[in-house]
Amino acid sequence: MNIRDALKLYVIPDRRIGAPRSIEEQAALAIDGGATLIQLREKEMNGRELYETACRLSSLCRSRGAVFVVNDRLDIALASRAHGVHLGKEDLPVSVARKIVPVGFLIGATAHSIEEGRAAEEQGADYVGIGAVFPTGTKNVVSVIGVDGIRAIRKALSLPSVAIGGISEGNAAEVLSAGVDGIAVVSAVVGRPDIAGAARRLAETVFSGKP
Amino acid sequence: MNIRDALKLYVIPDRRIGAPRSIEEQAALAIDGGATLIQLREKEMNGRELYETACRLSSLCRSRGAVFVVNDRLDIALASRAHGVHLGKEDLPVSVARKIVPVGFLIGATAHSIEEGRAAEEQGADYVGIGAVFPTGTKNVVSVIGVDGIRAIRKALSLPSVAIGGISEGNAAEVLSAGVDGIAVVSAVVGRPDIAGAARRLAETVFSGKP
Repeated sequence: MNIRDALKLYVIPDRRIGAPRSIEEQAALAIDGGATLIQLREKEMNGRELYETACRLSSLCRSRGAVFVVNDRLDIALASRAHGVHLGKEDLPVSVARKIVPVGFLIGATAHSIEEGRAAEEQGADYVGIGAVFPTGTKNVVSVIGVDGIRAIRKALSLPSVAIGGISEGNAAEVLSAGVDGIAVVSAVVGRPDIAGAARRLAETVFSGKP
Repeated sequence: MNIRDALKLYVIPDRRIGAPRSIEEQAALAIDGGATLIQLREKEMNGRELYETACRLSSLCRSRGAVFVVNDRLDIALASRAHGVHLGKEDLPVSVARKIVPVGFLIGATAHSIEEGRAAEEQGADYVGIGAVFPTGTKNVVSVIGVDGIRAIRKALSLPSVAIGGISEGNAAEVLSAGVDGIAVVSAVVGRPDIAGAARRLAETVFSGKP
């Protein structure tokens, strides 16, 4: 799958927000609804739990034609045969990760500003997650930059990009009007009772291709 | 350095126990006193902090002829050009790590029993840390097996081994009588006002070669 296509509907399952469903159940339902990429991000799991969860998600995504990336832990990504890793500012530098991954391994980075986006591009990131668009309860958000902020960063970069932070059914079209390739969500999909239905409605907005 | 020689005096710096000295200062003083191996084990650091600390320790150890391993985070170990990684039961499986590391990269495992020691050997570990010998305040210890427990596990294995858990100047000779190649310590070295002196006294015991 082309990286820009993979970024269309980027879903991050969450044990807490998606409870009582497991991360694997959340991911499977999200893919049913049209999720194109699943990211494993669980700060509370130890290495063994992460590895075992990542192996299950990697198999699931490969069998269903979705892309799978692991947040932060490049070792878990490599060990589970994930398609890539997502690296934030508190993780390994992108340029360092690039030196130890095989050709074709995806590296995503996070950008809260044009400067961070350009740095990600220079260091060899394959895509950039831009945010936070809106306030969100999922993460301690350092900066909320709005749709205009997303547009400004996106325009300054040639990298494929995905917007993240407080995106929902109600504002997805507006976010996409900023020119990003796709949207990344947690609560808007895995926090809903009908995960597949929620993913499907967001996928329709993303794939309609019009704001 | 031969792996059995590298295990002679295995020191694990600790930000909290060794405060106010930095991990790097603790490591440098321990090497001054004769530490043969430094392990970076800091569960509270994020990936970026670990990477930066690991790079400094890796350079320090290489320039001083000591071996450097990273606990748990194989990605940080690879990125910082450490000599190896130490994997416990809650970390990546040894057999999985073995598949993604270069030839000659050290993999250490932990054994609290003969079964765990044999599993580590079968999975391709280069050495095994056996413990806990004595109760310790450093970790939540699952099992205290005493010097006899260390001896029993050591005898069942052909792998190089290091004993860990509550080892001090007063009991080091007794622990070494169990036949391990060396001793691993935290508080007994980095928790002392004179880190180099504490390391030196332990090194003398280890290198004297007699119980």
